[in-house]
Amino acid sequence: MLWNITPPDPALAEAIRHKIDTKTKPLGALGQLEALAGHIALVQQTLTPQLRRPHLLVFAADHGIAQAGVSQYPPEVTHQMVRNFAAGGAAINVFCRQNGLALSIVDAGVRGSLADLPAVRNEKIAEGTRNFAHEPAMSPAQCVDALQRGAGLADELHASGCNVLGVGEMGIGNTSAAAVLMHRLTGRPLAECVGRGTGLDPAGHARKLAILTQAVAAHPTVDEAPLAVLATFGGFEIAQMCGALLRAAEHGMLLLIDGFIASAALLVAARLAPAVLAYCVFCHESSEQGHRLLLADLGLSGPPLLRLDLRLGEGTGCALAYPLVQAAVNFLNEMASFESAGVSDSSGA
Amino acid sequence: MLWNITPPDPALAEAIRHKIDTKTKPLGALGQLEALAGHIALVQQTLTPQLRRPHLLVFAADHGIAQAGVSQYPPEVTHQMVRNFAAGGAAINVFCRQNGLALSIVDAGVRGSLADLPAVRNEKIAEGTRNFAHEPAMSPAQCVDALQRGAGLADELHASGCNVLGVGEMGIGNTSAAAVLMHRLTGRPLAECVGRGTGLDPAGHARKLAILTQAVAAHPTVDEAPLAVLATFGGFEIAQMCGALLRAAEHGMLLLIDGFIASAALLVAARLAPAVLAYCVFCHESSEQGHRLLLADLGLSGPPLLRLDLRLGEGTGCALAYPLVQAAVNFLNEMASFESAGVSDSSGA
Repeated sequence: MLWNITPPDPALAEAIRHKIDTKTKPLGALGQLEALAGHIALVQQTLTPQLRRPHLLVFAADHGIAQAGVSQYPPEVTHQMVRNFAAGGAAINVFCRQNGLALSIVDAGVRGSLADLPAVRNEKIAEGTRNFAHEPAMSPAQCVDALQRGAGLADELHASGCNVLGVGEMGIGNTSAAAVLMHRLTGRPLAECVGRGTGLDPAGHARKLAILTQAVAAHPTVDEAPLAVLATFGGFEIAQMCGALLRAAEHGMLLLIDGFIASAALLVAARLAPAVLAYCVFCHESSEQGHRLLLADLGLSGPPLLRLDLRLGEGTGCALAYPLVQAAVNFLNEMASFESAGVSDSSGA
Repeated sequence: MLWNITPPDPALAEAIRHKIDTKTKPLGALGQLEALAGHIALVQQTLTPQLRRPHLLVFAADHGIAQAGVSQYPPEVTHQMVRNFAAGGAAINVFCRQNGLALSIVDAGVRGSLADLPAVRNEKIAEGTRNFAHEPAMSPAQCVDALQRGAGLADELHASGCNVLGVGEMGIGNTSAAAVLMHRLTGRPLAECVGRGTGLDPAGHARKLAILTQAVAAHPTVDEAPLAVLATFGGFEIAQMCGALLRAAEHGMLLLIDGFIASAALLVAARLAPAVLAYCVFCHESSEQGHRLLLADLGLSGPPLLRLDLRLGEGTGCALAYPLVQAAVNFLNEMASFESAGVSDSSGA
């Protein structure tokens, strides 16, 4: 698959900076929000950006590696939590309702039928991945299918007028998949990539690291091409997120990046098409230990918008950060300038 | 003046913690939002807290010390910015509109008449303070008057059904007043308390520090009682904020604390009645250099909600953080429990 992502034309940057600098505030006084406003204006190639129909896609899937005991939650929690999403009772439901994001739940590969839930979009590739401790998580064909299905969802949202896409996920075992993807694609030692997931104690964490070390060693001759790494160790929700991010960037949409697993999906995407990064807003830094390092590997120079010690996934970081994204757009569009308000600027003009 | 602030009864803490821990998420996965939800529930003494009629008061006043050249903006900007607030063109207008906070602008002591602006509440003590480089900024009677007027505003809001009060300010020169208050009340060296304000360059910063060092030395025998320090170095907007915070805490209202100057007002309040701190949500850490230290002096053990390198004041940190405060309340009230959603918890129950 080829991804045609064009980075935003920087020609407008100076005019955007001038507009920000003439607002009725000291130079730079809105800190990170100023950089964010400039970024969004550049992505949208306009001095008056608008966030239209913001949408969060939560991809859910099961992981064969969960059978190895890498999580403190049993695998059936993935399925149960999708039912909770459909009923509106999870954290992501609460935060999307509050902050005005539309929410879609995608069954990318959850074990067990969810066909009785009309609110869940069926993009199931299989009943979970295979256990990469023993065999590749998915076939090359499944991997491509997942990318394409994710891309198709981004196409639909774009066609409906959405220009802001957030991605989140649910899948017991998926911090393990994400950690191994990070390890293989960045070269960082596995121990730097493996964290406590949903809350393992030190013994559980050590066990997870041991299991994953052995699992990675079972694939010594793996092709290091990003798609091969994704197929060997990834999850269906990760692959669909990756496809959605890439296609949305092709459409010039703003991308809201959640925590560790979403960032791992983005890492794969960036290895396939580095220009995807130009469309990303990093919403929060998770307390999952690898996330800070992964954000650095993705080239993030400063902190993300929020640092609240979240480690829930589901896209909750995106939904919670969204009002800050909206605030950046709003100050750029709505604040008075020194001239229009008759306020003296610092040069006394 | 006596302030009768009762700290929240901790008896409910265990029930609140249980409610948070049985929500459909791993233990602690919502990080700081969990602590915040628990705090708000305790302040309101209920398992189902509600934020009612959230209101931001922006207090504006002029400072005699501004005549000494401590700011890079001319003193008339205070007056001009109040007109900008009244016209709805400032950052705080944009953020309050977006996030559903009512906004009131209070003339606590701005030079020049603002009587033509019905949107500005007239609580003017005088046409700015006197220059504390030469004489006390205000008389003891003015100081008490300012505290009482601020308290009166909190009474009005409480009577109207508001239970969340944010405070912000505008006043050219007020980082100087706040820095000296911090220095005198915490004992920290002045150099740790004096920052770049609205954006001084290193030479301007050095000049500000020199001016303030000399000004402080002009009051060697100052009474170290908090009210005497406030009268000698404070501003009318700082004193009114202080009175509003104290009275709002008496009413059991939740207090949203903005940046450096609001925190200095809280410092005075906490010296008068330490229990006020139990009602405070620290909304952001300003890039003004003294703020991080001041937050530590106020006993804040972790980071505040936002760290976005803001240094604007006006209450913008409160308005931007408000959706996170709302999110904390909403997850506590709206998320399903493991039991109600039929989700297995980590013990496999």
